Amino acid sequence: MSIISRLISFDNPAFNGYVTYGSVLVLKMMIMAPLTGRQRMKHAVPASPEDVSMLKGREILKSHDDVERVRRAHLNDLENIPIFFLAGFAYLLTDPDPTTALNLFRAYTLARCLHTFVYAVVVVPQPARGLAWGTGFFITGYMAIKAICHFKTF
Amino acid sequence: MSIISRLISFDNPAFNGYVTYGSVLVLKMMIMAPLTGRQRMKHAVPASPEDVSMLKGREILKSHDDVERVRRAHLNDLENIPIFFLAGFAYLLTDPDPTTALNLFRAYTLARCLHTFVYAVVVVPQPARGLAWGTGFFITGYMAIKAICHFKTF
Amino acid sequence: MSIISRLISFDNPAFNGYVTYGSVLVLKMMIMAPLTGRQRMKHAVPASPEDVSMLKGREILKSHDDVERVRRAHLNDLENIPIFFLAGFAYLLTDPDPTTALNLFRAYTLARCLHTFVYAVVVVPQPARGLAWGTGFFITGYMAIKAICHFKTF
Repeated sequence: MSIISRLISFDNPAFNGYVTYGSVLVLKMMIMAPLTGRQRMKHAVPASPEDVSMLKGREILKSHDDVERVRRAHLNDLENIPIFFLAGFAYLLTDPDPTTALNLFRAYTLARCLHTFVYAVVVVPQPARGLAWGTGFFITGYMAIKAICHFKTF
Repeated sequence: MSIISRLISFDNPAFNGYVTYGSVLVLKMMIMAPLTGRQRMKHAVPASPEDVSMLKGREILKSHDDVERVRRAHLNDLENIPIFFLAGFAYLLTDPDPTTALNLFRAYTLARCLHTFVYAVVVVPQPARGLAWGTGFFITGYMAIKAICHFKTF
Repeated sequence: MSIISRLISFDNPAFNGYVTYGSVLVLKMMIMAPLTGRQRMKHAVPASPEDVSMLKGREILKSHDDVERVRRAHLNDLENIPIFFLAGFAYLLTDPDPTTALNLFRAYTLARCLHTFVYAVVVVPQPARGLAWGTGFFITGYMAIKAICHFKTF
């Protein structure tokens, strides 16, 4: 059996963890859409002119701080989570210790959930958001650097 | 032969469909760039100050509704399609019925193409955009939840 | 040995190159965060109201051209790089000539680094940014079209 079929295998807990936590992060990102929608309804801020009809008769705002806050949290997800998907997969192929890998996936997922919570659900003063963001940032960076050092096919 | 080499295989139509429709969605997202560029040229809305020279002598606008509309459609793609790439792959590894999987990939791709069309090409009143978006949203959610229930390595 | 285990293999330089350059692109995208942070600090443009405390006593701006410029470069990465991850992987599965594949990964990565440089580090007049963007755009398109023609499982 080749190394790669041992790594990309249901017998490898790190691989199973990557798929599980990757899917959890997908759901976490999906939640941003109803979170934004709730703020748009609450403050009558339509995403687009054709949505005005759904706010029947209410006075329309162009934007509102609460809407912008959720949108910033969502954009931060877009900036961080898709690159984690690639970096996490690349890291998995470096044959890491499965427990370490699982712990990194756990920490990353927790950090990103906390990031959303302190940014867009209950606003917590800094450095809460900075720490949550930084945890995810450094895990992604560690994984990408480990993969580059391992594969170094330039 | 391990289960995974049966799933990630050219003999598995669901895998071939994932790669095909994934690539179609890449092209669909790429189209957003010329669509935006066309509106920027039409209304003389440069993306950046150094682009003003390409609009030789025309009166420059800071923004225009038609440009913003295409940009919103593009951002919505960024919010939805990369997570589908991960969720679709995770779902594929749950050994789904190949026909069901293919139909979900077809429905997702069609829904996202319609989303772009009714949002940024010909503006169709709601709930057209909502339905197109919701179809993609629920397919992604179904795939991610199915993968979590299957792998559940927390 | 199946074709796919020959392609997704540490013996395939194109696969190793995909993982290496993918991870390099992850790092390149990560750099956008400190680049944005540096401009936010320099011009006192907090991302969010709770960040004001970190700019102790300085006069706060709502936005600044230099901040917006880095943010546009970052958004352009989000629009282009995650779809390259999918297209590059799909292309790899079409069994391309390894040298060609590696050269495309090299050219793509170089083009995206140059794009960031001329957009957000040292502003270079057009067509510098257009050429860098276009190189990446056409490589992604070529890969996606090659994969569709190869797999064509609709």
